[in-house]
Amino acid sequence: MSWFRPLAASAGRCAGSLGGQCLAPSRALRASAARPHSQVAEDIVKLLQAKQETHEVKKNFVLKTPKGTRDYGPKQMAIRENVLSTIISCFKRHGAEAIDTPVFELKDTLTGKYGEDSKLIYDLKDQGGELLSLRYDLTVPFARYLAMNKITNIKRYHIAKVYRRDNPAMTRGRYREFYQCDFDIAGQFDPMIPDAECLKIVHEVLSGLKLRNFLIKVNDRRILNGVFAVCGVPDSLFHSTCSTVDKLNKVTWEEVKSEMVGEKGLSPEAVERIGEYIRLHDGLGLIEQLLQDPKLSQNKLAREGLEDMKLLFEYLTLFGIADKISFDLSLARGLDYYTGAIYEAVLLQPQNTPGEEPVSVGSVAGGGRYDGLVGMFDNKGRKVPCVGVSIGVERLFSIMEQEVEYSERIRTTETQVLVATPQKNFLDVRLKLISDLWDSGIKAEMLYKKNPKLLSQLQYCEDTGIPLVAIIGEQELKDGVVKLRVVATREEVDVPREKLVEEIKRRLET
Amino acid sequence: MSWFRPLAASAGRCAGSLGGQCLAPSRALRASAARPHSQVAEDIVKLLQAKQETHEVKKNFVLKTPKGTRDYGPKQMAIRENVLSTIISCFKRHGAEAIDTPVFELKDTLTGKYGEDSKLIYDLKDQGGELLSLRYDLTVPFARYLAMNKITNIKRYHIAKVYRRDNPAMTRGRYREFYQCDFDIAGQFDPMIPDAECLKIVHEVLSGLKLRNFLIKVNDRRILNGVFAVCGVPDSLFHSTCSTVDKLNKVTWEEVKSEMVGEKGLSPEAVERIGEYIRLHDGLGLIEQLLQDPKLSQNKLAREGLEDMKLLFEYLTLFGIADKISFDLSLARGLDYYTGAIYEAVLLQPQNTPGEEPVSVGSVAGGGRYDGLVGMFDNKGRKVPCVGVSIGVERLFSIMEQEVEYSERIRTTETQVLVATPQKNFLDVRLKLISDLWDSGIKAEMLYKKNPKLLSQLQYCEDTGIPLVAIIGEQELKDGVVKLRVVATREEVDVPREKLVEEIKRRLET
Repeated sequence: MSWFRPLAASAGRCAGSLGGQCLAPSRALRASAARPHSQVAEDIVKLLQAKQETHEVKKNFVLKTPKGTRDYGPKQMAIRENVLSTIISCFKRHGAEAIDTPVFELKDTLTGKYGEDSKLIYDLKDQGGELLSLRYDLTVPFARYLAMNKITNIKRYHIAKVYRRDNPAMTRGRYREFYQCDFDIAGQFDPMIPDAECLKIVHEVLSGLKLRNFLIKVNDRRILNGVFAVCGVPDSLFHSTCSTVDKLNKVTWEEVKSEMVGEKGLSPEAVERIGEYIRLHDGLGLIEQLLQDPKLSQNKLAREGLEDMKLLFEYLTLFGIADKISFDLSLARGLDYYTGAIYEAVLLQPQNTPGEEPVSVGSVAGGGRYDGLVGMFDNKGRKVPCVGVSIGVERLFSIMEQEVEYSERIRTTETQVLVATPQKNFLDVRLKLISDLWDSGIKAEMLYKKNPKLLSQLQYCEDTGIPLVAIIGEQELKDGVVKLRVVATREEVDVPREKLVEEIKRRLET
Repeated sequence: MSWFRPLAASAGRCAGSLGGQCLAPSRALRASAARPHSQVAEDIVKLLQAKQETHEVKKNFVLKTPKGTRDYGPKQMAIRENVLSTIISCFKRHGAEAIDTPVFELKDTLTGKYGEDSKLIYDLKDQGGELLSLRYDLTVPFARYLAMNKITNIKRYHIAKVYRRDNPAMTRGRYREFYQCDFDIAGQFDPMIPDAECLKIVHEVLSGLKLRNFLIKVNDRRILNGVFAVCGVPDSLFHSTCSTVDKLNKVTWEEVKSEMVGEKGLSPEAVERIGEYIRLHDGLGLIEQLLQDPKLSQNKLAREGLEDMKLLFEYLTLFGIADKISFDLSLARGLDYYTGAIYEAVLLQPQNTPGEEPVSVGSVAGGGRYDGLVGMFDNKGRKVPCVGVSIGVERLFSIMEQEVEYSERIRTTETQVLVATPQKNFLDVRLKLISDLWDSGIKAEMLYKKNPKLLSQLQYCEDTGIPLVAIIGEQELKDGVVKLRVVATREEVDVPREKLVEEIKRRLET
């Protein structure tokens, strides 16, 4: 992605900062969401039949993308490419291989992996043959891939779209079709080393995108289960209690409490005790404190989780990132398949008053350990321990789009030179010249007109940010030269035809 | 993509060539297709319930990807990235912007655009809300995008998967989920300039992938319609006659003939006359000949098409690629939306006997002009002329996979250095060192073991092609150095810790 021509009017309060108020939708997004498609679309149906032999007239035809989805235009794509390339370089820096899986899976493959969220899965219509569903995440397809190919050891990334029939909140970057960028490590290894690397990756990605005001919350399913156990929650309700706690980032503690008592049937006392634990968050100190906790330290699972958490913090300190990590007992992550460490990165609103608690304005990455998932697909139940992280790129795209909106104009092509002419009847000469440039690897365009005006050719460069113009007219043709014009300075110089490629490359190096 | 360690045994007859016999599935593909998933999967269902509260037992659970789809493993991904990056550079060289659209569209958006092929569209299940279908190509979504955003002028590329419930022939690279790489030019321009650029792009992409033995067939819908008209086909049957002619690349002329007479109800005489025309293929000479054809030259549409075809060949000659282009009256391309020039690139089997006609072994790109499609979505029927090309990358992936299979081993990661130790209890030191390397942009890995053996660390480099090892033990720690080992030569040198990054970069530059 490259930038050009900063706009004078762009120095808004959000330029260069990522304050909470900037997480509102960008102007571009809002404008596009407000466009009245339905109004213009009422009559379209009448025109749909032209020359189509079998087209059936529909009364309610509307010109739009499906609910919760959007197109990416050239500007959004340039931003997306920039974000994804930062993420991919990070994944590659950590030695990850890439894989890809189909957008749909056998319905059975997804069944029983997502708890209450299963209702959000998109199914395909039964058109004869297999029953299929669109993938809900990249983790279950990954586990299926490992089991199917009997792979017990891999470090891979996977960047692809996933699908959830959720209530879209597109202004906040929540869509029904959205990208996931997953990095996972599968294999039997010494404790917490791969887990620590996943957190290092989140840190590198967010720092690489210049998002410095973030916090990574960590917890462990074993600790959470230990908490539930010592608070008197029956084993059979661990999963669903976990799902309820997970709602804390969306609803208040009062609502969570009433769901636990009302719907899940927990005793009010148990819920109060849970509430005391999950209010705790801190670093190494809290881990030590809980290891001394008379009830929790007696619970085997919780103790294991706490010991591992301590190890994790050691490694994170060696990585120099412990200051961005918070051990937070309220972090639950509702998906069924997590078995150990879990984590989530949130962007923080800058504190208005020093000393005030920073406020989270949205999750941008999350993940954890899932040691049982692959075994669910293996015919002998062989387990492949896995840990991974998923970067929430849609939110990152939204943030970057808005940064661009407020700061600079973005180029959507990489064209280096426009082949132009001041003369009529020079199409042949332009075609020959541009062909030579393409064949030499130069990124070149020309106007698709037989006799374009020189002014429109130069204007096109201004509009699209093309830095150079190769002008060829009668005089240049006679002299065996091309006039190379620098758009920014209007400087012009005659370059011998055979030196043109070299000269263009030289000028674009600097 | 990078390569390492050519295998001695790899010099098979296909290495470096692309003969027809090489288009058979690669060994890897065949092996994977033959893996007996269903045998190992019968018992899996029993294990699926573990800890899942609501999982329903299915008797026929099978561990596989849906029919007609496949996973891409790390090796396939490396190849895919290589092919796609060649294509993307070409698109960018021609000044194209990128866009993306959702994987599904409103069902109505796709209705009436694909003629007989509409039955191959995947529908989503009606789960309440809008009726959706998976996209069948990238052209209709592009037209919808243009109409919806009132864009009348754009040069864009789009690389994404599309879906067709076709009979898969996976060994020949035909899948139900497959990539399309589309380049299109929308806008009102002088005739045949953008059309010629599309053909130039096909030529550049195939040459860029070192596939020199190819031919691009071109025709024009207007010429084809003119032929149908002068042969006595009624107007109303043009579309379906076109679909039937399109089958010529799959079935014999006899079969096409009998479908035209039997199913479409054309007279045997008309069909015979059509047969005479569509047997013709040549270059500029044939165009001149047909412009003199007493019947065809009287048909307005055909004459227009022939004049434009002449212009196209002029431009292709300026681009220096006319020798790879054949004007071929049998080329029909069945999709409803084409209105002008159409084209298709095929790979050729090398001629065994000089002078023999080269045999096509498969289509690798196709496209054409569709001036009416956007108007079908516009409420006032405003037309946006478009022309484009789609690169058939799945077939290209197959060819490249097989090239690799027969020639060299491929690296699936880009890791530059492994951080290793010969000592026990050096995990902390390794973690600190690798963290520094990552932070300096070095691609580094380490084994996730507390105390790995030096030999296994070195072996890991051999297995995965990592070129350098940064070894740190007690002595190195004391001396403030790291021992840098070149895997290929086993050369070792002590590098001061603060110079390590620089030294790694220096060594990998060459």
